[in-house]
Amino acid sequence: MSDKIKLAVLGSGKGSNLVSLAKACANGSLPAEIVLVASDVADAGILERAAEYGLPAKFIDPGKFRTKLDEAAETAYVTALNESGAEWVALAGFMRILKGDFLRAFEKKVVNIHPSLLPAFPGLEAWKQAHDYGVKATGCTVHMVDHGIDTGTILAQGVVPVLDEDTPTTLHHRIQQEEHTLYPRTLARLFNGEIRI
Amino acid sequence: MSDKIKLAVLGSGKGSNLVSLAKACANGSLPAEIVLVASDVADAGILERAAEYGLPAKFIDPGKFRTKLDEAAETAYVTALNESGAEWVALAGFMRILKGDFLRAFEKKVVNIHPSLLPAFPGLEAWKQAHDYGVKATGCTVHMVDHGIDTGTILAQGVVPVLDEDTPTTLHHRIQQEEHTLYPRTLARLFNGEIRI
Repeated sequence: MSDKIKLAVLGSGKGSNLVSLAKACANGSLPAEIVLVASDVADAGILERAAEYGLPAKFIDPGKFRTKLDEAAETAYVTALNESGAEWVALAGFMRILKGDFLRAFEKKVVNIHPSLLPAFPGLEAWKQAHDYGVKATGCTVHMVDHGIDTGTILAQGVVPVLDEDTPTTLHHRIQQEEHTLYPRTLARLFNGEIRI
Repeated sequence: MSDKIKLAVLGSGKGSNLVSLAKACANGSLPAEIVLVASDVADAGILERAAEYGLPAKFIDPGKFRTKLDEAAETAYVTALNESGAEWVALAGFMRILKGDFLRAFEKKVVNIHPSLLPAFPGLEAWKQAHDYGVKATGCTVHMVDHGIDTGTILAQGVVPVLDEDTPTTLHHRIQQEEHTLYPRTLARLFNGEIRI
């Protein structure tokens, strides 16, 4: 028996946040075991990264909608997560909105990382929104997932200055670097009981 | 003839930002001369602070409205500012919305400091809004004043972490400390041509 938290990671993209979490699990700084990596995109990089780290990885068909899971898919995700034994779910670039049945199945156990200082710039391409607005400081936010879009309780925020010479791409890159530090550190504090919700 | 910028400061409160600007003018770090301090509150601390620093200070009746200037008051403010020779106007806790005629008279020459990282938490008591929301980072923003509420082009932002033990009052205090550094430094960069609008 391990006293590590059983963690599932859901993502749709390259999987760089998964890598930061997997490394933190491996070096002991994050007291968790990644029991499942699931993606709604069959050829997503995150599934390859999971395989490289020897983690169980699974494409689960998201169904017929573009921005959420259909009913059958929601059931398939909840079933797979339950079968994996996952106690917590970390979203890492998962591009689908999670709805009532999923959130009820993992009540107050779903976290996300968002590439802005929420509540500023919720939604898509937050780094581009911030760059276009002209802010001088942005960053990333680890928060609980609730029924709203990027509205849940904030657990931690990392600040990234916007430089005069930044493009949306260079800014996004530095925000991601901050994410790779903030996400594992915040989950560790959460699982160690240092953050109360 | 001085090559210093002639600056007017408008405020409704204690005047701590005025003091930071007056000190920066006095020590030469802000290449400006404060030619008028005006307030819509007859017994505002900012008028006493102005007198202490030997600055021309004037109460100008704001008229019959609570959150803006009435037409006669707007004319009185513009007249007083013109008579002072002011080239730029710095708002420092001025609790009235400036409208079209005022902004046309000082087009792109009015700046404000707001106690949050805009666009998050515009409007009143922004430090309390941020504390109540539960953000982990907030701060202050120096921005151009346009017709919206706290929507103008951002010139600079200073970040202030929110501590677990913060109350709205302690957070407000630390944001104000950051303001007292950020405001004179940003105006200096603006007047030195280091910031282009």
